[in-house]
Amino acid sequence: MRHPYADLVAHAAHLLAAAGLDGDKPTVVAERLVRADAMGHTTHGLALLPAYLRDIGSGAMTRSGEPAIVVDRPAAVVWDGRRLPGVWLTARAVDLAVARARDYGTCTVVIRRSHHIAALAAYLTAATDAGMMVVVASSDPAAAHVAPYGGKRALFTPDPVAIGIPTEGDPILIDISASITTAGLAARLTTAGRPLPGVWALDGEGRPTDAADVLSTDPRGSLLPIGGIDHGHKGYGLALWIEALTQGLSGWGRADGEAGWGGAVFVQVFDPELFAGGPAFRRQTEWLAENCRANPPIDPEKPVRLPGSKAAAGVARAQAEGLELFPGILEALVPWAERLGVAALDGRA
Amino acid sequence: MRHPYADLVAHAAHLLAAAGLDGDKPTVVAERLVRADAMGHTTHGLALLPAYLRDIGSGAMTRSGEPAIVVDRPAAVVWDGRRLPGVWLTARAVDLAVARARDYGTCTVVIRRSHHIAALAAYLTAATDAGMMVVVASSDPAAAHVAPYGGKRALFTPDPVAIGIPTEGDPILIDISASITTAGLAARLTTAGRPLPGVWALDGEGRPTDAADVLSTDPRGSLLPIGGIDHGHKGYGLALWIEALTQGLSGWGRADGEAGWGGAVFVQVFDPELFAGGPAFRRQTEWLAENCRANPPIDPEKPVRLPGSKAAAGVARAQAEGLELFPGILEALVPWAERLGVAALDGRA
Repeated sequence: MRHPYADLVAHAAHLLAAAGLDGDKPTVVAERLVRADAMGHTTHGLALLPAYLRDIGSGAMTRSGEPAIVVDRPAAVVWDGRRLPGVWLTARAVDLAVARARDYGTCTVVIRRSHHIAALAAYLTAATDAGMMVVVASSDPAAAHVAPYGGKRALFTPDPVAIGIPTEGDPILIDISASITTAGLAARLTTAGRPLPGVWALDGEGRPTDAADVLSTDPRGSLLPIGGIDHGHKGYGLALWIEALTQGLSGWGRADGEAGWGGAVFVQVFDPELFAGGPAFRRQTEWLAENCRANPPIDPEKPVRLPGSKAAAGVARAQAEGLELFPGILEALVPWAERLGVAALDGRA
Repeated sequence: MRHPYADLVAHAAHLLAAAGLDGDKPTVVAERLVRADAMGHTTHGLALLPAYLRDIGSGAMTRSGEPAIVVDRPAAVVWDGRRLPGVWLTARAVDLAVARARDYGTCTVVIRRSHHIAALAAYLTAATDAGMMVVVASSDPAAAHVAPYGGKRALFTPDPVAIGIPTEGDPILIDISASITTAGLAARLTTAGRPLPGVWALDGEGRPTDAADVLSTDPRGSLLPIGGIDHGHKGYGLALWIEALTQGLSGWGRADGEAGWGGAVFVQVFDPELFAGGPAFRRQTEWLAENCRANPPIDPEKPVRLPGSKAAAGVARAQAEGLELFPGILEALVPWAERLGVAALDGRA
């Protein structure tokens, strides 16, 4: 069943407001979650809402106010997120970095003690629509799913990084991570009793496996870094980079031993106008985009795609025709609507 | 046979000066090449010198002068490298970015029309020794070795990226690329008649292979992006990111169709002191370093290593005990020494 995009956003925003988030936080969080679903990131959209509502209720997610400003230099900003909603903090950080990059060419905003930030891909078009290149990366110092290459004990989160690159047409929207897969997908496949799509994990003894439940076994296993057994030192390097950008620059991380679902966040924006110029930038990126799409495909049935093209089509379709959510997501919201006294979502498309 | 580090640098510098490089260019280029050999990057050290000397002779590498300054903002700089030695340009770019980051927290220098920049790992300690985090990335718009994921025609270079991260002890020195392997290693293994260490390539029909000669077959094959057949969309995303950083921001790249061995270069430095503080940064990175080293290894004989630790040990050993070059490298310099009238390297260690 398809639901109008705006209805899904409104329903999620009502739930978040009823739970206690103030100001524009409910709307911003709701819109980014629905967008993640529309982009196909169905483990990082409204599927997260029950856990967010739980954390608002318990106080683990801060309901109101602003981040504390730790450092505010023209091109270098550090916020203490005070466990405010990470989705709202990150959206604001992108807006600030875009505004500053217009004057300084680049701006970096790092956030310590954010709550969870959901799907990084959902933040990119706020920058690319302004003609800017953006990088968003995050890690959660209180969680560990990925071991350093050659090791058995999980130490890093998947450490996602998303990059938005303007072209003359649709932007390139990259959303990758330092690990082959995410904890969210592993959990979903575990529940479904299915294996991972490849040998993407290590069991508790450090043996390669496609078992999806490695994070809940005893001894606990881990998800493999990008490159897997064959060349996982590359994903290991990427993880160290992202942990340093997010936790090192924000000055808050694993060394603090702080518990609680959250994130350290790195946002960086470049305004090509203040480098070699917007047209010169887009001339190169448009050439790349065209030559990727025109590349002769290995499988004639599968043309080479640009990262983000499927996600952008998903958002456009969801906004035009409504969105069908992944099974179980809407059902999990029903008890929350009852508890919070919010009208249930209309079932019609 | 081991040669004193300083003798190797002096010999390479003499050759470069005799070929016509002016000022401090011979010494800077020579030192970074010898350091690359000492770090274990033996395809990207003195093995490159004959080709550099050839390009100096032909005029393909510019011998003298400064880069043209295209943009000079406090934290955003664009140079036209005028085909000057890329090793010298990149070393200077790191120095400038370090100086600017001290005032602004971060500085980005991009270079168009550089000549080749050799091993990216050799530039990192100039920043980490100053307590700063550095990223160096490059691409060569005139070359193509890696196809977009799902495609058959090479479009990207391996697109290396190196990251230097200070800790309380030795810095973490990461040197990876968007492809599984490099054109240099593929060429060396082709000459040796050996396969690649894994299924790291596609043949001209787009079939996965461990053949090392895919770049010289007809139809031409390609090197696989990180993740290979299994999850190569991650390396593809990384390649697009690096091509946009290097060619997009510098405003010079594949769209220009310019021939000739060269590079577009991206250098970025962060001074942690102007973010959350140097001690706060190093507290996190030192924790990461310690917990990587202490991670229980899969193979008890192979402790988990930090990226760069082997390379740093190689440099320390080379500086203390001299350096044994990869077979054939020194022999290839002999005819150049004769042609340029430079005394041959003393054969004793």
